[in-house]
Amino acid sequence: MRTIWCTQQGVVQIIDQTRLPWTVEVVDVHTVHDAATAIATMQVRGAPLIGATAAWGMALAMAQAPDDLQTPAAMLKAARPTGVNLAWAVDRMCRALRDIEPGARAARAASGAAELCDDDVRVNTRIGLVGLKVLQAIHARTHRSVQLMTICNAGWLATVDRGTAMAPVYAAQDAGLPVEVTCLETRPRCQGGRLTAWELQQQGVPHRIIVDSAAGSVLHSGGIDLIIAGTDRTAANGDVCNKVGTYPLALAAKDNDVPFMIAAPSSSIDLAMDSGDGIEIEYRSIEEVTHLRGPSGTSVAVTNPTSEHIVSPAFDITPARLVSQLLTEHGACQATSEGISGMLDGTPTLSR
Amino acid sequence: MRTIWCTQQGVVQIIDQTRLPWTVEVVDVHTVHDAATAIATMQVRGAPLIGATAAWGMALAMAQAPDDLQTPAAMLKAARPTGVNLAWAVDRMCRALRDIEPGARAARAASGAAELCDDDVRVNTRIGLVGLKVLQAIHARTHRSVQLMTICNAGWLATVDRGTAMAPVYAAQDAGLPVEVTCLETRPRCQGGRLTAWELQQQGVPHRIIVDSAAGSVLHSGGIDLIIAGTDRTAANGDVCNKVGTYPLALAAKDNDVPFMIAAPSSSIDLAMDSGDGIEIEYRSIEEVTHLRGPSGTSVAVTNPTSEHIVSPAFDITPARLVSQLLTEHGACQATSEGISGMLDGTPTLSR
Repeated sequence: MRTIWCTQQGVVQIIDQTRLPWTVEVVDVHTVHDAATAIATMQVRGAPLIGATAAWGMALAMAQAPDDLQTPAAMLKAARPTGVNLAWAVDRMCRALRDIEPGARAARAASGAAELCDDDVRVNTRIGLVGLKVLQAIHARTHRSVQLMTICNAGWLATVDRGTAMAPVYAAQDAGLPVEVTCLETRPRCQGGRLTAWELQQQGVPHRIIVDSAAGSVLHSGGIDLIIAGTDRTAANGDVCNKVGTYPLALAAKDNDVPFMIAAPSSSIDLAMDSGDGIEIEYRSIEEVTHLRGPSGTSVAVTNPTSEHIVSPAFDITPARLVSQLLTEHGACQATSEGISGMLDGTPTLSR
Repeated sequence: MRTIWCTQQGVVQIIDQTRLPWTVEVVDVHTVHDAATAIATMQVRGAPLIGATAAWGMALAMAQAPDDLQTPAAMLKAARPTGVNLAWAVDRMCRALRDIEPGARAARAASGAAELCDDDVRVNTRIGLVGLKVLQAIHARTHRSVQLMTICNAGWLATVDRGTAMAPVYAAQDAGLPVEVTCLETRPRCQGGRLTAWELQQQGVPHRIIVDSAAGSVLHSGGIDLIIAGTDRTAANGDVCNKVGTYPLALAAKDNDVPFMIAAPSSSIDLAMDSGDGIEIEYRSIEEVTHLRGPSGTSVAVTNPTSEHIVSPAFDITPARLVSQLLTEHGACQATSEGISGMLDGTPTLSR
């Protein structure tokens, strides 16, 4: 099962991830407006899946109003600000469509979106094989299950399939290499405790859940071999923008000599962004902090109800100096300008 | 209003902190068993208040069975393992009672518990004045509200009154110095977003709430002048055991050059403990991670319900190298063996 697909009738369908882990509900996406709403409300989330949804959003727009590329492109790009794959996917679609006459755009857009999704799966499978080498090296040294820690969800739910940070785990599973995953719950939306745990459960991967604050303690206690996280945007110098909490996790990894790696498609590297300082951080609704939603519309108050001032950055910047390696479909490289350009030029500079 | 008191009828009363911030419910504590249960179920929490409750527990035991010091002392000490004030308070009571004939113990125990509570308030008031100097120095430099960050609750709710980490805030309020507090919500029990926010609201102190993971991002954004946290036990070398998440918070403070201070009574310094490595960390029920309780018995599932393995350390160890200063009733000192012994000997070695 993929996270997004198009039916024979031309309806795009997604899994409503706000209903997981309690209900697997498939939702129809009929229009580009539906696609933008699905992205903004986080029915779909994860940089690669946001990109795939945007591509299908462009395809739906072309089926309905093939004369206008600009309006749907702008609407989709505005749905969430931080991840680069969203703009990347929309631009890729626009490039493929702009020189085509409107009458032919619907068909080209549908095949373009399908190709983008297939590419995502192919890229993630390769990221998995790149990461598998890292896991195999650990296992060769320890002769026990590889203990991996991750934050948020960068698994198949965050992509079309296979995942980014979790791709090496699934590659290891295919290769018969035992891996266990420690999931940070990832407040405020708890995508780690909900989505990653659910997805690993579906795949039969042993896992455990900890609150975000416990990562430092667990890393200090020993036994974690490696952290792999995803990224929504990586700057040209290797600074990584990912789910809020990634930066303190990387600090705790460094303080305990645990390698901290980022797994991502090269499409999430933004060469136009010199460093993480320039990346726009999305601030989300304070309601995500004040109330926690559960199954079937249940909700409880988390915070003191008379405290009005709450700030909720959805992402943070992990400086490149804290990143041991970037794992992409092109191989592993150091999180530096030289490492990234070398990897993109086909001459990866491998670190430790 | 204090957090614990004894009525004219000899009934000890506490505020049930598991009902806050929604309901201020006063609960009767009739027996030493009730006192131990109140500590274990966290109706009372915070190292100093746990100590005060244990002292009143000993007083209740003496009123009912004055021949036996051993059984109530052991029962109380076993209620929670990590904080040192619990054993310190029980031992202080036992020392005051052991050479007294049983018939006179009830009265002596009641006055001893009352003294211990009064001492706590006096000590915390002095910690507040020690911290006030730090806040005044910041304000003299910045000419704006002092921006302070804290984790969990080390306010008046964690003590008999005034608090430890929040004592400087209340001292500043008394002195007319503007202070604003950023509270980490402090999963899993959310004492920061619930108790500290409620308490600051009651006192009219401007404050905001962030999820624990956002501390790194907020510190990096600038504007936070100082972090002050409490401690459940400080080792002789300055290693600090406090609420889980304190260690990664201290790492983020260090990485952003924000001073990280610990405010605590000297009774929380355990000179018998060479370093943090020897401190027993309490692991709490996984239900605190899997479900979040709200007002009136409501609760929602936080995590994937089929994920069974969850680990929930309640505390972590912040190495002394990350602690800028210890603030106690004797003054401020460096978090080193020399700093601590100098301070306890009356010759505090002040750091920056």
